[in-house]
Amino acid sequence: MSVPEKLYEGKAKILYPTDDPEILLAYYKDDATAFNAQKRGTIVGKGQVNCTLSAALFKHLEAAGIPTHFVEQTAGDRMKVRRVRILPLEVVVRNIAAGSLCKQTGLAVGTVLKHPLVEFFYKKDELGDPLLTRDRLLLLELATAEQLQQLQTMALRIDEILKDFFHQCGITLVDFKLEFGIDGSDRLILADEISPDTCRLWDDSQSDPEARVMDKDRFRQDLGNVEGAYQKVLERVLAQTPPSAPH
Amino acid sequence: MSVPEKLYEGKAKILYPTDDPEILLAYYKDDATAFNAQKRGTIVGKGQVNCTLSAALFKHLEAAGIPTHFVEQTAGDRMKVRRVRILPLEVVVRNIAAGSLCKQTGLAVGTVLKHPLVEFFYKKDELGDPLLTRDRLLLLELATAEQLQQLQTMALRIDEILKDFFHQCGITLVDFKLEFGIDGSDRLILADEISPDTCRLWDDSQSDPEARVMDKDRFRQDLGNVEGAYQKVLERVLAQTPPSAPH
Repeated sequence: MSVPEKLYEGKAKILYPTDDPEILLAYYKDDATAFNAQKRGTIVGKGQVNCTLSAALFKHLEAAGIPTHFVEQTAGDRMKVRRVRILPLEVVVRNIAAGSLCKQTGLAVGTVLKHPLVEFFYKKDELGDPLLTRDRLLLLELATAEQLQQLQTMALRIDEILKDFFHQCGITLVDFKLEFGIDGSDRLILADEISPDTCRLWDDSQSDPEARVMDKDRFRQDLGNVEGAYQKVLERVLAQTPPSAPH
Repeated sequence: MSVPEKLYEGKAKILYPTDDPEILLAYYKDDATAFNAQKRGTIVGKGQVNCTLSAALFKHLEAAGIPTHFVEQTAGDRMKVRRVRILPLEVVVRNIAAGSLCKQTGLAVGTVLKHPLVEFFYKKDELGDPLLTRDRLLLLELATAEQLQQLQTMALRIDEILKDFFHQCGITLVDFKLEFGIDGSDRLILADEISPDTCRLWDDSQSDPEARVMDKDRFRQDLGNVEGAYQKVLERVLAQTPPSAPH
């Protein structure tokens, strides 16, 4: 079997075409990057963990009425997804203050927010993925006002669903980053991945600020045992999800 | 006469108390700083120019119905102002893209915006005066939702007045930064200064992108003849304003 030419290679995934022009194959890499790729490394087994986790979470979200690009997982580290046009936006939902929110506002890490905060960042490496105000987003025509409203609503609904789900896993969903695409009918579809690379996840059984971290912050902050933390998230999530139906 | 102890020293001004507890004396310095004070220098005569310009523009705005902290200019480089509690916000109004908007969005310098853009930055040197979304501003309780709405309305009205005024001076008002205070009756009052330190001003008689600059960008970008440019703004503004009434 010949290897098809890749359509797109990002920091964590490669997209390949399939025989069906509407379907792509997403291959999840073990490569890890942080701080706009200034820090690079490998998290052994990350591709498999993140692909399997994303598959489980996309299925859970679909079942709750959120349209996603997920079609099926075809191997440990790859899944078929629907082809969409990705919006150049990182949609971040925050339940607890952490990361750039704290760096940019002086809020203490761990501050519980009264309401979930939905934020938009411009997905543009050469600008360092800057924070966008609503007006800047509209000025740059990165989405329409109607899409923006839909993104806000979908992001908050996804937060509710995932917060509940992770709570059952003994995990606190601190914040997470989503990407959305638009399908042929101009419908907004959740795309990209949902994994410890894109979520901050704190272990409810740990109170120590370093021991509780189960996500890419272990890699960003050199906290050690990155693979173990990712694996533990996977185990807890799979224990809460029904086994896949046969195709 | 003894020199009173200063109440506050900022990068460009010093505030002194007066015999009246409701009135402060603002002394305008020749010191120039840029890029969060990483670049420092002196613009000879700047104190006098900016104080006189601010006095003229505050008077013009007051006459058009905008409450300001200005009381009277008492010497070339100093003015009496009303004591207010300054909000820790830089309110920026943009008519044409320049400065951090371009750096953070990739928009070309000189792009004319369809509508004036009002933006809020957190006045906090140690954080680098970061851009604030509406939600972050409210989360940090830097202003109430009602104040935010008033600031937006006042900023747009000030933009209309100043844009028209500078147009009569043969100057394009590209963007500018405002600061507001709250008086004893919780009323929002325009404070700080309005000068080539806080406005981007382009000479309508020049088309060259460097020759047209009449503001602090000459200092920021080492374009030369900083004093001459500030002086020219002052001359044109004074030619458009009636002489002060005697006190």
